[in-house]
Amino acid sequence: MSLTKQVVIIGGGISGLKTFTTLQEHINPDKILIIEADNRLGGRLKSTNPKDSKLGISYDIGASWFHDSLNNILLDDLLAERVVGVDDVYYDDRDASVYDSTGEIDIVGLKLNRVLEDLEKFIEIYYHEDINRADMSLKDISEVFIKMHGLLLNGKQKEYAGRMIRYMELWYGIPYDLISGKYSIMDHQGRNLLNKETYSENLLKWIISKIPNSSIRLNDPVTSSKRGIKDGKRCSIKTKSGLVVNCDYLIVTVPLSKLQDDSINWSPPLPSNISTALNSIHFGALGKVIFEFQNIWWDNKQDRFQILPNKIESQVHEKLTIMPQPFTYPIFAVNFSKVHNINKGSLVILTQSPLTEYLESTTPENVWKYYKPMLQIIAISQIEDPINIITTNWTNNEFIKGSYSALHTHDDPSEIIIQLSNENEVPNIGLDDKYIRFCGEHTISDGAGCVHGAYMSGIREANYILKDLNIQF
Amino acid sequence: MSLTKQVVIIGGGISGLKTFTTLQEHINPDKILIIEADNRLGGRLKSTNPKDSKLGISYDIGASWFHDSLNNILLDDLLAERVVGVDDVYYDDRDASVYDSTGEIDIVGLKLNRVLEDLEKFIEIYYHEDINRADMSLKDISEVFIKMHGLLLNGKQKEYAGRMIRYMELWYGIPYDLISGKYSIMDHQGRNLLNKETYSENLLKWIISKIPNSSIRLNDPVTSSKRGIKDGKRCSIKTKSGLVVNCDYLIVTVPLSKLQDDSINWSPPLPSNISTALNSIHFGALGKVIFEFQNIWWDNKQDRFQILPNKIESQVHEKLTIMPQPFTYPIFAVNFSKVHNINKGSLVILTQSPLTEYLESTTPENVWKYYKPMLQIIAISQIEDPINIITTNWTNNEFIKGSYSALHTHDDPSEIIIQLSNENEVPNIGLDDKYIRFCGEHTISDGAGCVHGAYMSGIREANYILKDLNIQF
Repeated sequence: MSLTKQVVIIGGGISGLKTFTTLQEHINPDKILIIEADNRLGGRLKSTNPKDSKLGISYDIGASWFHDSLNNILLDDLLAERVVGVDDVYYDDRDASVYDSTGEIDIVGLKLNRVLEDLEKFIEIYYHEDINRADMSLKDISEVFIKMHGLLLNGKQKEYAGRMIRYMELWYGIPYDLISGKYSIMDHQGRNLLNKETYSENLLKWIISKIPNSSIRLNDPVTSSKRGIKDGKRCSIKTKSGLVVNCDYLIVTVPLSKLQDDSINWSPPLPSNISTALNSIHFGALGKVIFEFQNIWWDNKQDRFQILPNKIESQVHEKLTIMPQPFTYPIFAVNFSKVHNINKGSLVILTQSPLTEYLESTTPENVWKYYKPMLQIIAISQIEDPINIITTNWTNNEFIKGSYSALHTHDDPSEIIIQLSNENEVPNIGLDDKYIRFCGEHTISDGAGCVHGAYMSGIREANYILKDLNIQF
Repeated sequence: MSLTKQVVIIGGGISGLKTFTTLQEHINPDKILIIEADNRLGGRLKSTNPKDSKLGISYDIGASWFHDSLNNILLDDLLAERVVGVDDVYYDDRDASVYDSTGEIDIVGLKLNRVLEDLEKFIEIYYHEDINRADMSLKDISEVFIKMHGLLLNGKQKEYAGRMIRYMELWYGIPYDLISGKYSIMDHQGRNLLNKETYSENLLKWIISKIPNSSIRLNDPVTSSKRGIKDGKRCSIKTKSGLVVNCDYLIVTVPLSKLQDDSINWSPPLPSNISTALNSIHFGALGKVIFEFQNIWWDNKQDRFQILPNKIESQVHEKLTIMPQPFTYPIFAVNFSKVHNINKGSLVILTQSPLTEYLESTTPENVWKYYKPMLQIIAISQIEDPINIITTNWTNNEFIKGSYSALHTHDDPSEIIIQLSNENEVPNIGLDDKYIRFCGEHTISDGAGCVHGAYMSGIREANYILKDLNIQF
């Protein structure tokens, strides 16, 4: 079968959906087609069915926060359209209680929060002073900090600094012996706001409702893309089911992991400037484990619990073939009992690579076996076994294979954004065939890795096409 | 009397002293003269005599912290020279307990620390988005924040944000209805480290010991400065006592306030680019009140106490002719009982204009009368009357007249630094007579307002002279 469209959008995640709805304000939706490999729209925005919860909760198992909430146009749009109301969101950012294998840590008394701030500022200054300084892992730069500024720190502060900064593993989804020290420091544009109602229930429902079913094709991965005039159209793609679509514009929104694994056969092949850029950054594996309990057996005034790893001398990034020892990886757990103001227990725990791959491939029993001795530490009454366990499956999802882009040591985040989006308007960059466009969290600087970044990249590429078509917008 | 010198340095504060010692490594000290108006060296580095304390403590009543401690070359020098040891300094930055007229505030539970961080980030973003946005006071921009981002804040958070940010008054020494919102956000380069041993005991003793007495003239304000060759020298100054010194280079380190009040008669007059720049910023009035008590009647595990002002609708910057109501100005009190690990009570309280002027001109009895009802709030046992009160006198010191440079709304900090230091190497700027140089906290961007900024400006100007003389350094 063969179709002809003005615009084809590969991928029905938020960047593709936003590209569609932005175009649709000016172009007949019949002329636009979204082709999604999976059996649903939303991509890495995905929520569980409340029926899968013993507590009737729907959990976002992909993205779940509005980051940069002072400067997040997605949040602004959703609030302005009343898609999101004040009670649908929650700032889960009360100072976290912090524990390690010895129990609760007196963060304030030991001033470990101040030391951590200083370590982060040190990293920022270190590379700001000389951008050409060699990158090193977050683990290594933490040790440089102690060497250079440890004189005025006490023993506990020196010991804890490198263990505390491992919280970043739960930002990037990769372990600290891989995280690029140079690019580890984020300039947050405001607090992180939990989308308590879930992204499926508000953002996805709202945006998908605008798109005609006839403009969506599910369950059909795109397998090849050919540049060159055919039937008067500039480009042609083919799907696994054999569908051929000729189009004037092609928007490629597949995850970075799917660009990297050559799932799409490019003809002619992608030029080396692009293929090199694609390999200048990595893809992380942030996952989640959700435990539900009959009762709340922790301090329910806390939003979050952090459990620090022990000091680990060996590498922690190696693939796990057996269950790791407890306290090998940091834990960041959100107290959903408080988020939802219920009197049953719910903890949402973030996981990082290589732990995510292990947990996503083992049994629920093993998942609990791994966490129980660590969660024991936060118990203020008898710890209970869970009545329900939900584990994400991102690393086994063949259409996603992880979470989002992540910078390993020696990676360069700018190259891919320049090549795929040409945000900086450098001449002679990207594809010569300008009608093939890229969007998604990996193609944008502001909001990189975030839902609002993906959303903005969709607006950017839709506007590119409208401008190219001389359509006023 | 008339002297001839290669270099004259007006002002014996840290910038002048550092200029001297830097030059002295290459120039015979006989050729350099420091002329100081006051009867002592050190300027705004000044410590009390332990005999003036009932607890035997020496207090820094001027500068007392090493700011930007990750990037402070003064601190680095003092540590490297072992002038300062690990036990001579103290990070007094444990999360402060915060109170208002109603008692202790649950900062963590109400997440007011997060809201304050967001307010500060908002200000940064607001002016970063558009540098040409009109400046407004810190008070006004706090209200803009609530208007733009109050939707997701609760009532207490909205109420407290504008009161909490008044802590900045104790940074700048001016009230928040005068503080420039645009320039209020500081990029701290590391923690603030209290110089527990005092700047007099370490920095001043060390640096003054290097300077021959014969190169120092005290008690003799410079009253005029004449450019133009005389006796083969390029410049000539005259002091109040009638001393005339002809010199090749003149380093002017007097406080900004003394440049602004025309204490030095310039001949020819300073050009308008400089006089305009001098009036593009203001001078603050940070002061201190020190109370000593027989016992410690507060929670002695705290480093600092913050007491918030009530919500004040009227202006707070007007000169005080009578004692203000309690809770009109924020209080920032450092618990010196903990700093010095003693079992007697010592609180060091910072004050801002216009309160500083009032307190520095009233009786100790009145000072205590003003503070007692507010300090009552932090008492965990019976509040005591002090056994000793020390109040600074900076605003009445005719050679200083306040604390350090401060940015009022609509001020421009860059102009004065460009004109007085030419840090940016703009052509045709500053004085045509390049042998007249300026240094001090008001002439430098990095470390502006700080001891290490003044110290670095001294190095900068010494190096200028050495370079001008073709001396390798």
